[in-house]
Amino acid sequence: MTRKIAAIFLLLALLPGAAALAAPLSDDSQACLDCHAQATPGIVAAWQASRHAQTTPAQAMKLGGLAAKLSASAPPPEALATSVGCAECHTANADSHPDSFEHQGFQVHAVVSPADCARCHPVESRQFQQNLMAHARGNLVDNPLYMDLAAQVNGVQQVDGAAIAVTPAEPNDEAESCIYCHGSAVRVVGQITRQTDFGEMTFAKLDGWPNHGVGRLNPDGVKGSCAACHSRHRFSMAVARSAYSCAECHKGPDVPAFKVYEVSRHGALFFAQHKDWDMNKTPWEPGKDFSAPTCAVCHVSLLADGEGNVIAQRSHAMNERIWLRLLGLIQSHPHPKSPQTSLIRNADGQPLATTLDGRPATAFLIDQAEQDKRRQTMRRVCLACHGQQWVDGQLARIDAVSQSADAMVLAASKLVRRAWQDGLAQGPAQGGSPFDEYIERLWVEQWLMHANGARFAAAMMGPDLGVFESGRWPMAKNIRQMQDWLIQRKGEK
Amino acid sequence: MTRKIAAIFLLLALLPGAAALAAPLSDDSQACLDCHAQATPGIVAAWQASRHAQTTPAQAMKLGGLAAKLSASAPPPEALATSVGCAECHTANADSHPDSFEHQGFQVHAVVSPADCARCHPVESRQFQQNLMAHARGNLVDNPLYMDLAAQVNGVQQVDGAAIAVTPAEPNDEAESCIYCHGSAVRVVGQITRQTDFGEMTFAKLDGWPNHGVGRLNPDGVKGSCAACHSRHRFSMAVARSAYSCAECHKGPDVPAFKVYEVSRHGALFFAQHKDWDMNKTPWEPGKDFSAPTCAVCHVSLLADGEGNVIAQRSHAMNERIWLRLLGLIQSHPHPKSPQTSLIRNADGQPLATTLDGRPATAFLIDQAEQDKRRQTMRRVCLACHGQQWVDGQLARIDAVSQSADAMVLAASKLVRRAWQDGLAQGPAQGGSPFDEYIERLWVEQWLMHANGARFAAAMMGPDLGVFESGRWPMAKNIRQMQDWLIQRKGEK
Amino acid sequence: MTRKIAAIFLLLALLPGAAALAAPLSDDSQACLDCHAQATPGIVAAWQASRHAQTTPAQAMKLGGLAAKLSASAPPPEALATSVGCAECHTANADSHPDSFEHQGFQVHAVVSPADCARCHPVESRQFQQNLMAHARGNLVDNPLYMDLAAQVNGVQQVDGAAIAVTPAEPNDEAESCIYCHGSAVRVVGQITRQTDFGEMTFAKLDGWPNHGVGRLNPDGVKGSCAACHSRHRFSMAVARSAYSCAECHKGPDVPAFKVYEVSRHGALFFAQHKDWDMNKTPWEPGKDFSAPTCAVCHVSLLADGEGNVIAQRSHAMNERIWLRLLGLIQSHPHPKSPQTSLIRNADGQPLATTLDGRPATAFLIDQAEQDKRRQTMRRVCLACHGQQWVDGQLARIDAVSQSADAMVLAASKLVRRAWQDGLAQGPAQGGSPFDEYIERLWVEQWLMHANGARFAAAMMGPDLGVFESGRWPMAKNIRQMQDWLIQRKGEK
Repeated sequence: MTRKIAAIFLLLALLPGAAALAAPLSDDSQACLDCHAQATPGIVAAWQASRHAQTTPAQAMKLGGLAAKLSASAPPPEALATSVGCAECHTANADSHPDSFEHQGFQVHAVVSPADCARCHPVESRQFQQNLMAHARGNLVDNPLYMDLAAQVNGVQQVDGAAIAVTPAEPNDEAESCIYCHGSAVRVVGQITRQTDFGEMTFAKLDGWPNHGVGRLNPDGVKGSCAACHSRHRFSMAVARSAYSCAECHKGPDVPAFKVYEVSRHGALFFAQHKDWDMNKTPWEPGKDFSAPTCAVCHVSLLADGEGNVIAQRSHAMNERIWLRLLGLIQSHPHPKSPQTSLIRNADGQPLATTLDGRPATAFLIDQAEQDKRRQTMRRVCLACHGQQWVDGQLARIDAVSQSADAMVLAASKLVRRAWQDGLAQGPAQGGSPFDEYIERLWVEQWLMHANGARFAAAMMGPDLGVFESGRWPMAKNIRQMQDWLIQRKGEK
Repeated sequence: MTRKIAAIFLLLALLPGAAALAAPLSDDSQACLDCHAQATPGIVAAWQASRHAQTTPAQAMKLGGLAAKLSASAPPPEALATSVGCAECHTANADSHPDSFEHQGFQVHAVVSPADCARCHPVESRQFQQNLMAHARGNLVDNPLYMDLAAQVNGVQQVDGAAIAVTPAEPNDEAESCIYCHGSAVRVVGQITRQTDFGEMTFAKLDGWPNHGVGRLNPDGVKGSCAACHSRHRFSMAVARSAYSCAECHKGPDVPAFKVYEVSRHGALFFAQHKDWDMNKTPWEPGKDFSAPTCAVCHVSLLADGEGNVIAQRSHAMNERIWLRLLGLIQSHPHPKSPQTSLIRNADGQPLATTLDGRPATAFLIDQAEQDKRRQTMRRVCLACHGQQWVDGQLARIDAVSQSADAMVLAASKLVRRAWQDGLAQGPAQGGSPFDEYIERLWVEQWLMHANGARFAAAMMGPDLGVFESGRWPMAKNIRQMQDWLIQRKGEK
Repeated sequence: MTRKIAAIFLLLALLPGAAALAAPLSDDSQACLDCHAQATPGIVAAWQASRHAQTTPAQAMKLGGLAAKLSASAPPPEALATSVGCAECHTANADSHPDSFEHQGFQVHAVVSPADCARCHPVESRQFQQNLMAHARGNLVDNPLYMDLAAQVNGVQQVDGAAIAVTPAEPNDEAESCIYCHGSAVRVVGQITRQTDFGEMTFAKLDGWPNHGVGRLNPDGVKGSCAACHSRHRFSMAVARSAYSCAECHKGPDVPAFKVYEVSRHGALFFAQHKDWDMNKTPWEPGKDFSAPTCAVCHVSLLADGEGNVIAQRSHAMNERIWLRLLGLIQSHPHPKSPQTSLIRNADGQPLATTLDGRPATAFLIDQAEQDKRRQTMRRVCLACHGQQWVDGQLARIDAVSQSADAMVLAASKLVRRAWQDGLAQGPAQGGSPFDEYIERLWVEQWLMHANGARFAAAMMGPDLGVFESGRWPMAKNIRQMQDWLIQRKGEK
């Protein structure tokens, strides 16, 4: 920081004619700052450090072509000449916002939705609606099988003698579990009047708040939260592009992407060097702006070489570079056609993309041509830094590991089915949940955690995670533990 | 580094009259450096890069008001005009140091205690003595129940046929376990004479050394080690303020604070951006100096807005912002009144803040008014960057998650009690340790690890950790495993 | 980056006579770049940012003495005057490269081996061949006992009624497991002809590719991959010296070095401060260039104080500073004499450095004098920043923890042997694998994971990892679980 100040000081001394670059603030946003600089100083100071505070849409429009950071052909005319301040987002589209309320002479809403961001970033907003993530809430809460699993995870268990009763978790407890990442339904449930430093004020009272899950259902009916990755109130591209941003929801054993990254060569380079990378450049140039991919490089960002040749187009519909679903229930399978996975039904009528035995629900999944196309898109990203044999060799390994992980899940599925058939546990056919008893939970871990460890480790090139930490060893041991349980329970041997 | 040198070089070239800023070294410290620059070059070089080496207390005193980094109204007069060098700390308060020994004409002690630091930082030193951490050693070793648990963790188990005997761990083994963080008792046990590069020398021989645990009992009888967080010999505020510093003792499953931070939005911002933050500013300004809280922001640091309005006062008695104890034995409860928790007795006479059923030892715990006051202090920190509904919504969730985690521990407690009652395990009533047998260890994991995962994840806003990695899933599975064990052992079903 | 550019701009403005520092490119490498700037832009851009691109060997030779980054007394004369570009490595030693193929008029090989790097770095290359890591592949695949374990980890298990059959994993699946770090055997298996943007081309077809494991067996018969730590194509010393580089293979529960570092004071300082460290300095000065050791500081790097006094000589034979082997099968033991550990046989004829009871295979292990010498070498590194009592106290604790961990493994070994003797599991004497059944896997975890956690935590000074996360608690619980299993299976109690 000191260095920066010194450098700027010197620069100004040498270039006395240098013009100030600051963007003018709108009167409305100035009115916000008049109180909020004191009321919420952290938000204001963070925003002041943002590109939104330092650029007007009109200025941003001048960065054309690949360098464009704004996809609207015509941003709202009234917002063109001032910085993107408080009012520009929190009073936008007031008519479609049931959470809008009168506040010091303005119609204000707290919950900014992707529709608000779409005023300047319509392409990204539209793409995101095609992203599985935008549907993360519905894909969970509209799938009865997943909701049964959630109940067995979050429910409060009460021991009464030998029996265990499960009470549903409180909404405030649920909000800190699956819903935190999948997204809450934010709804206006009345008004709240409060004494503040600036007198008595009335606000819209929100249910399901706070939440910034990727699949949040906003009061305006629009899905998603851009802040999930871009983080309020600096909305830094550098943050969204850093691998850290993804870790908030993609580190646990059910989806250990960041854990894989931590033991990958890609990650080693990022962690050791990203302080010197240009995380804000557009387009983003491999090898120059960064030395190794972050999550965004492979899954989202616009990449080009030094000559301006596009390596990969930006897309916020991240599925466009993914052909295989690795964390599908029970077995891996081609990616779903629609981002709304709760609509899928397998041959056994279950809301799953495969049967327990791995037969895919083909009608709901992308075909071979689409798989090849997406694989090719990802392949081009890899080829920026790796030779063809390297890339094709690596891709073949992802397939091999997925298949062996599927086989190891199948083995566990056979064992839990034997427990059900022999009356040692109560499965669906016996009217029980398949997810509550101990032996069933071992089975759940096989596909929801262990298999994912192996698959993700191969897919994101951090194999070490998939050997002992997660993946192979836990899968191999778990099968033997389930077998051992059956032997013991049946009194065999 | 190169850049810095270049910038300084240029600055000097442009401002030829600029005065050197270095602080003069005392003669005593110069005498230390004469040998130690060669004997322990790493220590000397690290100290040379420190603020202690570059500032005199007299210079520091000029930074008054909120910017003050030194709390003494009158630092020792003899130390005012020179930098804070080796001698200023390692020869201070020689009379109260049993570990002081004659060394090249000086009375020197190796173990600098908070009483030495208090010469310039008396407020922080005094506050720290009210901190639970200062009592971390006594709170462990003076609690017979905790010591039984420690013995079942650290003791060496010997298998003899079907029986297992537990031998206490060696002191050198213990020192690398609980005691490392809780703090050793450092005592002088004689003298040691050694041949050195500078001739034969005699030193005080220390037992319990090395150690820099927060609750260390120093030879001078004072509790604590400032180096636990501030790190020798640079004593960097930036290090203590970084989340990394806390990870040394707060990452394991018994207290997974850093693990939660790693999957929180706060953490994502810190990890991605802290290279550009001003980690040394006093007071510390949210949004400007940093974009997201580190541990210190919420629990320790002096925060103010850009106008100099105080958001939170600095306190090294970290309990001042904590109302609820989340990692209390068995069940959560209001914070203890005294930092000496080994004095607490519950209704069953155990040295615990609640009974196994969760009844709090109210007389030893802060009352509702004090809880509200502390909650309010923390709330103000949150409000710097979040609206009131956001903050109050989040705080309500901490309560909800604590309650459900408590309920899930209670379920496990009922199951282990059944094992004791049915004679399947030897609990306290049967004259056994409640912590040694397999079924008892499952119970221990329920409260000491799994429940903490859920509670901490909610309290520090990294919910993902509390769903599958720790918290809910392990709690829910563990209850079923304990039930399954009972079924099996009783031969039921 | 902006700062750097500003500073350079100013420097040039003030020093108009400053000469350009760029190194000339060879004609051959220019020919590579002509196509590859477009074909693999990421590689080219990363290389352009490297020291290899910016310096000629002749320039590097001028940095003599401790500052030397190049150990050849006479690098190849034809490579002296140009930068170290594509051709300098990928066409070097063509005669010894079976993977060399004709490519646009050049004899090119994709797999650069340590023999190629040895043209300029012969000392490092030679030392590395004495490193255990260079033999990581053979030490695994030539040890039948380890290969049995690998088969029980990677093999695909098929459930058929009560029986489980194990099918060997596919090579592409194996490549993503043990072999990824231990190293593949890269062999030429034919040719491959492909349509490219530059016309049809023919390449050597490689088996075992990609791989950059430390023990890779290259087509030229030479062992190792310098890129495993130094990372293509920037070959940054800063990356290899950062702890992140080691995490790729040293983070899992079998070798949790990086996990220990993450909870060590050393790690806290690295993570918080390394952005300001000089990670490229040679020699490396403790306290000035860095404030806390990374893995390389203790195990590899050349360290000197500010006067140029050597603290530790650089060595790529990392064993030179290690006297005790902590992750040896079953029990810790003195370091092996030869890096080829598959040649070791214990008193029971097994390819292990100790018997199951811990008797060392003394003839294959370094003697006390060599142990003392290595301990002394490491001790000198510690002494740069710590006093003698500190260091000796810490070293004594490593011994104590190793011994108690060995005792805790012995307890588990006795329990698994009882299972074998009582016919409850099929061990080697019964013609079974000692690694496949559930009770055997608990035993494997005791030494391969849990004991390592305690030992590594003490050795690398991050004790917290060895208490609950790994180490003591899992070891103590596991013994009770194994005992519980025996009680249950025998129907006792």
